[in-house]
Amino acid sequence: MALRAAVAGASGYAGGEVLRLLLAHPEIEIGAVTGNSNAGQRLGALQPHLLPLADRVLEPTAPEVLAGHDVVFLALPHGQSAAVAEQLADGTLIVDCGADFRLNSAADWEKFYGSGHAGTWPYGLPELPGGRAALKGASRIAVPGCYPTAVSLALFPAYAAGLAEPEAVVVAASGTSGAGKTPKPHLLGSEVMGSMSPYGVGGGHRHTPEMVQNLSAAAGRPVTVSFTPTLAPMPRGILATCSARATAGVTAHTLRAAYETALRDEPFVHLLPEGQWPSTAAVHGSNSALLQVAYDETAHRVIAISAIDNLTKGTAGGAVQSMNVALGLPEELGLSTIGVAP
Amino acid sequence: MALRAAVAGASGYAGGEVLRLLLAHPEIEIGAVTGNSNAGQRLGALQPHLLPLADRVLEPTAPEVLAGHDVVFLALPHGQSAAVAEQLADGTLIVDCGADFRLNSAADWEKFYGSGHAGTWPYGLPELPGGRAALKGASRIAVPGCYPTAVSLALFPAYAAGLAEPEAVVVAASGTSGAGKTPKPHLLGSEVMGSMSPYGVGGGHRHTPEMVQNLSAAAGRPVTVSFTPTLAPMPRGILATCSARATAGVTAHTLRAAYETALRDEPFVHLLPEGQWPSTAAVHGSNSALLQVAYDETAHRVIAISAIDNLTKGTAGGAVQSMNVALGLPEELGLSTIGVAP
Amino acid sequence: MALRAAVAGASGYAGGEVLRLLLAHPEIEIGAVTGNSNAGQRLGALQPHLLPLADRVLEPTAPEVLAGHDVVFLALPHGQSAAVAEQLADGTLIVDCGADFRLNSAADWEKFYGSGHAGTWPYGLPELPGGRAALKGASRIAVPGCYPTAVSLALFPAYAAGLAEPEAVVVAASGTSGAGKTPKPHLLGSEVMGSMSPYGVGGGHRHTPEMVQNLSAAAGRPVTVSFTPTLAPMPRGILATCSARATAGVTAHTLRAAYETALRDEPFVHLLPEGQWPSTAAVHGSNSALLQVAYDETAHRVIAISAIDNLTKGTAGGAVQSMNVALGLPEELGLSTIGVAP
Amino acid sequence: MALRAAVAGASGYAGGEVLRLLLAHPEIEIGAVTGNSNAGQRLGALQPHLLPLADRVLEPTAPEVLAGHDVVFLALPHGQSAAVAEQLADGTLIVDCGADFRLNSAADWEKFYGSGHAGTWPYGLPELPGGRAALKGASRIAVPGCYPTAVSLALFPAYAAGLAEPEAVVVAASGTSGAGKTPKPHLLGSEVMGSMSPYGVGGGHRHTPEMVQNLSAAAGRPVTVSFTPTLAPMPRGILATCSARATAGVTAHTLRAAYETALRDEPFVHLLPEGQWPSTAAVHGSNSALLQVAYDETAHRVIAISAIDNLTKGTAGGAVQSMNVALGLPEELGLSTIGVAP
Repeated sequence: MALRAAVAGASGYAGGEVLRLLLAHPEIEIGAVTGNSNAGQRLGALQPHLLPLADRVLEPTAPEVLAGHDVVFLALPHGQSAAVAEQLADGTLIVDCGADFRLNSAADWEKFYGSGHAGTWPYGLPELPGGRAALKGASRIAVPGCYPTAVSLALFPAYAAGLAEPEAVVVAASGTSGAGKTPKPHLLGSEVMGSMSPYGVGGGHRHTPEMVQNLSAAAGRPVTVSFTPTLAPMPRGILATCSARATAGVTAHTLRAAYETALRDEPFVHLLPEGQWPSTAAVHGSNSALLQVAYDETAHRVIAISAIDNLTKGTAGGAVQSMNVALGLPEELGLSTIGVAP
Repeated sequence: MALRAAVAGASGYAGGEVLRLLLAHPEIEIGAVTGNSNAGQRLGALQPHLLPLADRVLEPTAPEVLAGHDVVFLALPHGQSAAVAEQLADGTLIVDCGADFRLNSAADWEKFYGSGHAGTWPYGLPELPGGRAALKGASRIAVPGCYPTAVSLALFPAYAAGLAEPEAVVVAASGTSGAGKTPKPHLLGSEVMGSMSPYGVGGGHRHTPEMVQNLSAAAGRPVTVSFTPTLAPMPRGILATCSARATAGVTAHTLRAAYETALRDEPFVHLLPEGQWPSTAAVHGSNSALLQVAYDETAHRVIAISAIDNLTKGTAGGAVQSMNVALGLPEELGLSTIGVAP
Repeated sequence: MALRAAVAGASGYAGGEVLRLLLAHPEIEIGAVTGNSNAGQRLGALQPHLLPLADRVLEPTAPEVLAGHDVVFLALPHGQSAAVAEQLADGTLIVDCGADFRLNSAADWEKFYGSGHAGTWPYGLPELPGGRAALKGASRIAVPGCYPTAVSLALFPAYAAGLAEPEAVVVAASGTSGAGKTPKPHLLGSEVMGSMSPYGVGGGHRHTPEMVQNLSAAAGRPVTVSFTPTLAPMPRGILATCSARATAGVTAHTLRAAYETALRDEPFVHLLPEGQWPSTAAVHGSNSALLQVAYDETAHRVIAISAIDNLTKGTAGGAVQSMNVALGLPEELGLSTIGVAP
Repeated sequence: MALRAAVAGASGYAGGEVLRLLLAHPEIEIGAVTGNSNAGQRLGALQPHLLPLADRVLEPTAPEVLAGHDVVFLALPHGQSAAVAEQLADGTLIVDCGADFRLNSAADWEKFYGSGHAGTWPYGLPELPGGRAALKGASRIAVPGCYPTAVSLALFPAYAAGLAEPEAVVVAASGTSGAGKTPKPHLLGSEVMGSMSPYGVGGGHRHTPEMVQNLSAAAGRPVTVSFTPTLAPMPRGILATCSARATAGVTAHTLRAAYETALRDEPFVHLLPEGQWPSTAAVHGSNSALLQVAYDETAHRVIAISAIDNLTKGTAGGAVQSMNVALGLPEELGLSTIGVAP
């Protein structure tokens, strides 16, 4: 018998992608779909690509609407999840696509988000060391940020194997959907087409402490991350270029071997054959992460590059994958590794 | 037991899309994948988004390779299908994504393609009047062109109901994948990004006679089509703006009613609610066609606009849909009506 | 001695483009630059491409700020120009980039804009028959809409020569800057990239009566225009595909001859050699309009296609060109026919 | 009296941009325009944006064609410049947009280009310490690569002031025109739109030794550069994100002060106000480089980001600027600091 899932924040990009994936999930039946300012509108007017749900009407994001579901996905602005979650039954699996419960450190939360820390939930990146164990049977899941997903997958094998010095440098390009659906001048098509621009430079981006948390855990020692995000003229996709000084004795061979070992059994993380490089187009709409790693002999650095779809593996796909693990379903259920290209 | 399907021309855009859809088809097992100049290469290097097939190696497009399959998809350059088809067993279902067998008129073929006419096969647009009947049990299918699919779906209800004069005017914008994967200067990213341009103006485009054929059949009298295709800065999608003088007595109400009646039971053609207009983004990767129709009172014209994904409903999805009909499978099997957006 | 020009609405796309062109104009010195909600901000933060003006601070759009200039460009939301204009001295040349004074017919204005008609000013399309004469010495100029510019240039030679029946069908694709800088969900980069969509279908677009006005004047009899605008995934550019039934006796030769004659001496409208088609990329940032014309023998239609930059020839360039004519300066002064491509 | 300039390789992107800029240069008259396989074609068919040159016919790239000009721009494939240059008169100013004469080290040339080293010419980046002096009166100029221009401008102030450790990490995104006009599958619009992808990872890109050369000279000691280029879905522009560990005692204040001092008098390099970040759109078609610099306190790194137009400041604009210096003309002559945006 199918499980019933509600999606709060169904008019946004993350909520829409959760719905797109749940429509293809054989064990899930879509229950309530809710919005805030859009409550009362047809979903067809807001998410015209979700044709089977076109006649659904958005309900308000309220406890009584979300009650009675087996799973509730929260795709709300940061800081709003805790209030909603505490009104839901303990037995409900809550999957939070927001940032609220990702960080272990209350100090980090307060520094980067400027409000009280709501707590820490099991972290929805099964590929990290110990990641699956933490999710099994969980009733609360904090879905990782899109950048931390791309960066953590790219670098954790190097850190777990002790091949990289603890000062990572990351430059990542993201499609515009990562910035959400709220209209702002700098996100207009006229502004972003034909343009690349950085933002949150110098350590200020809120995803930085999340990367630090993941990579430090993998390394077993504190890792710093110099993170520069850039906005790219495409709707979806993250390309993360990550590097760190190699530790003594690293060779191209030991590096590749470490990645092959770490990723061998992963269904969604794919180390490309040598000489082939990831592109975001190849993972458009898929839950795959494509990886490649290189050793720059002259600069003595490990360079790991990952491509994901920020909305799929980076948000909604990661959420569904983690839900599968939590519920004891096959991890790949309802998720595709096939991109829509060209 | 699954049917085995081969795909000839698997390194191109049409062939790649056929494979993408077949991977999701529950009754199909993918057999041989073949190429011409790319034979011997890993599919992963040519179609990196088709991750489950990454380690497949392209075989040459040869009769002995294609033999022994239940279904053979041909995604070859125009004019090459006949030679391949005649070497395959009669019982094999051959689905030709090329133009070779689409036209009834040998004279039209010779005028627009400049070679001998290979014949006419059942036409793979089930939505046309009589379309399904012609496909049931067929062992040969001519998949429509992408533009004729978009235009025929947009206008056949008006012509079938006698609401439009027989001089259609069509301007359609296509994504660049419609022009194929063979590198040419005008298809470079540098040239197409930020640019709209027409081509084949004045009646010269090869898809014109196919539109004329379909609309004349729907109207029961000869229809002319003034067709202007334009190249749009996007990889996928066709937006077709089609119009014709309204016949006497047409009102907005009778027009809409005719479309509602004609499309009521169609699984893949969706008339949008009044006031909502189709976009190609909403059908990205889906087999849906989104339609809207309007009556321009001042100019006294019927205006019908359709959006499809040129590679899905416009090529590979139409091919799979027609295959389903021919084989007696549920028409929607393995096909999605959900787009990947934004 | 240079003339001083003020630009009201300098933070928007039209105002920004006026400034870009005035910076290159040898007879103009830029005076006040004004905004409404952005008053008080550095122009560098709003228009970072206008580096020489980066430290200018936007003043409020007020009579005392705009007073004392030789020329005042208004790039304001429709309906606001009249109130500003009436407070400026009679001798000031006012160039209105808005719609307020374009239409001759008060009834049309009221139907399409829903407010009282402010009046009619000399129309800033010098290429139209009688266009230059109407502008010479004018102290008020109504700059044409971007679509009417593209469409009128494409079709007036056919209508003026009596080669086209009076029912024009126009489908035009516009870059997103035509929709302005006010953030709206459907204009987000995430929504427009990879997507084509129509709007204002069925006669409702406000630029329709302006096209009707221009083409009827050229034809010397009433012309109807069935106009469908579409939004294209590019920041700039309009490609207008325009057609009409040919009148009796038209041939490809007479058609081309009529265009050659009509456009022979135009500095900014360029009929391409036969076989070459316009693209919006080729006019990116230039004041040129590229044209091509074809006679579709089968459909018996005249097809004329034009490409312009909606912000340059379609707005600010047309404004500066008309200003030059009004002031008795060389018409091409400060304007370029060279596009920025690729 | 104007100087006559020839452009060899006028059908490519670099050659086309040289022509675009020379058309606006008051002291230059355009002489011969040459091509290789395109010789005999109208320039209008190849570079339709260069309207004033549309009727020029490409001549072959031969000594007798290039002879008799005051300046000859070479925009040829790497490795072809030496043979052409040695056949031109000593007094001719040769400006080579190719790589042939950029590197001081013959060993580096051989390692990265695999052929014999042709020599070293004065380097066309006037902003580098000593850059102008080296160019004054020169009769040979090696125009820098596009990436080295962006990266050297971003980091030289930090290195010259001793504020950065000698291990630079650079990730740069380039528009597709940087890859040239020769059609290749991975450069098709269908492939690049919606996609980011890296290439030449791990130290292999040919522009790396040029960056090392420039930054080492600025630092006065050997600097390594870990350089990862990425292809971005836009026709033009480079965004270079460059970083290095800060040396002891660096503060945000000392860092900014060093950049302000180094760039104070530069006409084309513009340090943005604090809090504002460069975008490639703002320099589209302009010769400006926009810079911003930040000190990441946690990661203890200097982060410098630059945006240029790869074809303008990164190639043809840099070439014209250096020509101006060499000829004793005002350095800014014929060059614009204004971008075409949006």
